[in-house]
Amino acid sequence: MTKQRIDAVRRACASRRLQALVVAHLPQIRYLTGFTGSNALYCITKNASWLLTDGRYAEQVKDEVRGARAVIVKGRLFDACAQLIRLPRNARIGYDPASVSVAGFSQWKEALPGRRWIALDGIVEAGMAVKDELEVAVLREAIAISEKVFREILRILRPGVRESDVAAEITYRHRLLGAEADAFEPIVASGVRGALPHGRASDKKIRSGELVTIDFGCRVRGYHSDITRTVAVGRPSYRLRAMYDAVLDAQTVAIDAVRAGVRGSDVDAAARRALRSHSLLRYFRHSLGHGLGLEVHEWPRLSPLSKDDLQTGNVVTVEPGVYVPGVGGVRIEDDVLVRPNGGLVLTSLPKKLICL
Amino acid sequence: MTKQRIDAVRRACASRRLQALVVAHLPQIRYLTGFTGSNALYCITKNASWLLTDGRYAEQVKDEVRGARAVIVKGRLFDACAQLIRLPRNARIGYDPASVSVAGFSQWKEALPGRRWIALDGIVEAGMAVKDELEVAVLREAIAISEKVFREILRILRPGVRESDVAAEITYRHRLLGAEADAFEPIVASGVRGALPHGRASDKKIRSGELVTIDFGCRVRGYHSDITRTVAVGRPSYRLRAMYDAVLDAQTVAIDAVRAGVRGSDVDAAARRALRSHSLLRYFRHSLGHGLGLEVHEWPRLSPLSKDDLQTGNVVTVEPGVYVPGVGGVRIEDDVLVRPNGGLVLTSLPKKLICL
Repeated sequence: MTKQRIDAVRRACASRRLQALVVAHLPQIRYLTGFTGSNALYCITKNASWLLTDGRYAEQVKDEVRGARAVIVKGRLFDACAQLIRLPRNARIGYDPASVSVAGFSQWKEALPGRRWIALDGIVEAGMAVKDELEVAVLREAIAISEKVFREILRILRPGVRESDVAAEITYRHRLLGAEADAFEPIVASGVRGALPHGRASDKKIRSGELVTIDFGCRVRGYHSDITRTVAVGRPSYRLRAMYDAVLDAQTVAIDAVRAGVRGSDVDAAARRALRSHSLLRYFRHSLGHGLGLEVHEWPRLSPLSKDDLQTGNVVTVEPGVYVPGVGGVRIEDDVLVRPNGGLVLTSLPKKLICL
Repeated sequence: MTKQRIDAVRRACASRRLQALVVAHLPQIRYLTGFTGSNALYCITKNASWLLTDGRYAEQVKDEVRGARAVIVKGRLFDACAQLIRLPRNARIGYDPASVSVAGFSQWKEALPGRRWIALDGIVEAGMAVKDELEVAVLREAIAISEKVFREILRILRPGVRESDVAAEITYRHRLLGAEADAFEPIVASGVRGALPHGRASDKKIRSGELVTIDFGCRVRGYHSDITRTVAVGRPSYRLRAMYDAVLDAQTVAIDAVRAGVRGSDVDAAARRALRSHSLLRYFRHSLGHGLGLEVHEWPRLSPLSKDDLQTGNVVTVEPGVYVPGVGGVRIEDDVLVRPNGGLVLTSLPKKLICL
C-alpha cells in the first residue's frame, strides 16, 4: 500500500525534475507513512525517504511508520532534514506553498541555501483524492458508525432538548461505536439558528415546529464521514417544508450529475439551477461539496470556481443548503463515490423529511 | 474589553511605524473581535478595523463581532481587504510570518503590490498572554468543569475498561457540564502505553497494577483548561511509584519557581534538576509547559530554549513527565497563574498518587 503511494510520488517528482520533495501537511504524511502524530515532516528523494518528528513520538513511530526511515529530532525538524538529504547546490526541491508558513519556509531556505525551491501542489493530493477499495471500505465504516449514531439521536430529539446536548450525544456515541473521534465539532442548529450554516451547537432548546440541521461525522483509522440531515420536530410550517423540498430537489439533481469526467463546477451548477427554479438560489451561500478522505476537505472541490474534473475513485460530499435569516435553514449532505457512469451514494439515511 | 485590546494593538503598530496590521490567526481574531468562525481575516489601521469572512457567517457576525466592521466576502478574503484599506504605495504593513502560508502571502502581495510587508510576531500574542480578571474567571470555569469530570471518571476507571471508553466519557461529560468542546482529544495511556507522551486513547484495556496517564481539558467561551493526572489501578510496582514520586517532586519544585520576572527556561531547568537528582532526566522528553488561554499552546513557553520572561497575569501549564519505554509513564500537569511573588495554582485536584 505505502509502497504504491510512494512510487507514485517518486514518478511525479521525476516528471517535474525534482531531486527531493518536502511534505509538511500532516494528513499527507499519514497517507505516505502511516504516522499519526501532531508534529512531523516528510522528505523523499530518488533513493530514500524520511519521517522526522520529536521525542514525544519515539515509541509511536515504531508501531506506525512504514516505508520511510523514522528520525527523532531535537530542535527544528527541517534542520535535521537538511543534514540528511545532502543535495547538491542548484538541486530542485519541491514543496507545497499552501502547507508551510512564511516563517517556516524562510528557515528551510536558511538550512539548505542555494537550492531551487519549486512551488507545487497536487503531487500528494492527486493520489489521496483517488480512493482504492480498502480506503472506500474504511470510509464506509466511518459512515456506518455515523448513521447508527444518527438513528440513536432521533430517539432523543424532542422539544426542550438543548442543541449542545444533542452534540454531546453524537460525539459520545461516535466514540463508543469505535470511531477515533468526531471528524469536526457536530453542528446542531435549530429554528432560526438554522440560518447559520456553521452554527456551533448552543444552549438553545429545540422547540416544536422547528427544523433542526445536524451536520456531523467521525474518523475511523484516519478516514472521515461527513453527513447532514435536517429533521423537523413537531409540524413545520408550509414555508419550511417548501425549503426542504427545494434543497432535496437540488441535492438529487446534483448527485445525478456526478460521474467521472464531469467538472466540479458543473455539478455545483446543477444544484444552483434547481435552487433558482425554486427562487431560493440567493439563500445558498457556500459551495456544493468537497472531497472526503484523510481530510474532511480535500480534492476535488464542487464549487462555482472549481476546475477539478471528477475521477473514478473520488469520494465527494454533495451538500446544498438554504439559509433564510430569521426563518431557518435546511441542508442535506451525502457522501458519494465517483464511478465511470455515475455516483454511488455511500450514505443510506433516508431523505424524506423526518417529522418527530 | 475589545476596545482596550484594540487600543493596545494600535499603540504597538504606531511604535513600529506600521500603517496597518493584518491578522490571520483565528484565536487572535477571536481575541480582538469576538468572532468564532473558521474562516476570517482581520485588518486594522489607525482609524478603522475590519473582520472579513465568508457568507456562511453572515448571521453569526451580527451576534459576535464587536469593535470591527464585519464584511462578508465572496472570493478571497484578502482581495476584499486590499480594496478596503487603500494604503499608499510604500506603506508599512505588519503581518505574522508564522500564521500565513507561502501561498497565501504571495496572494496578499499580489493584491497590494508595492507595499512594504514587515514580518513581526508578538503584537497580539503579548496582549493575549496577560489575562485580566475576567479571563482568569473563565479559565477557572473551564478548569472546574474538567476537575468535576475527572472525579466522575475515577469512578469508572477499573481493570478491563478500554482507554477509548475513558476518553469518550471525558468528552461526553465535558459537554454535558457546559463546555463548548474538548480542548484537544483526551490522552488516556495505560501501562507501557504510558511511555507514549502523546498516545491517543486506544482499544487497550486497563489492567490491574498499571499506571494510567490522563491528559485532558475543555473549552469554555474560547478559553481552555489543560490538566494531567496519572493514577494507579490496583497496586503499582515499586519502580512505578518511584517514577511518580520523582515527577511530583519535579512539578512541586517547578511550581515553586514560578513568579513574575523569572525566565521560562529557568522554571524548566528547576524541573530538570529535580529529575536529574532522581536519575530520570533522560526520560523527560518534552518541554515543561506553555501559556494557556484562547489557545492551548500560547505565550509564554517553559522550555530549555525559552527566552520568555513570566509576567503577572500569565497562565501557564507546569507538566513534567517521565516516559520509560517498556515500563510506563507518569505526567502531572497543573495550570498556574503568574503573580508578582509566586504562582497561584488554579487546579485543585489532589496530587498524591491515587490507587484505585
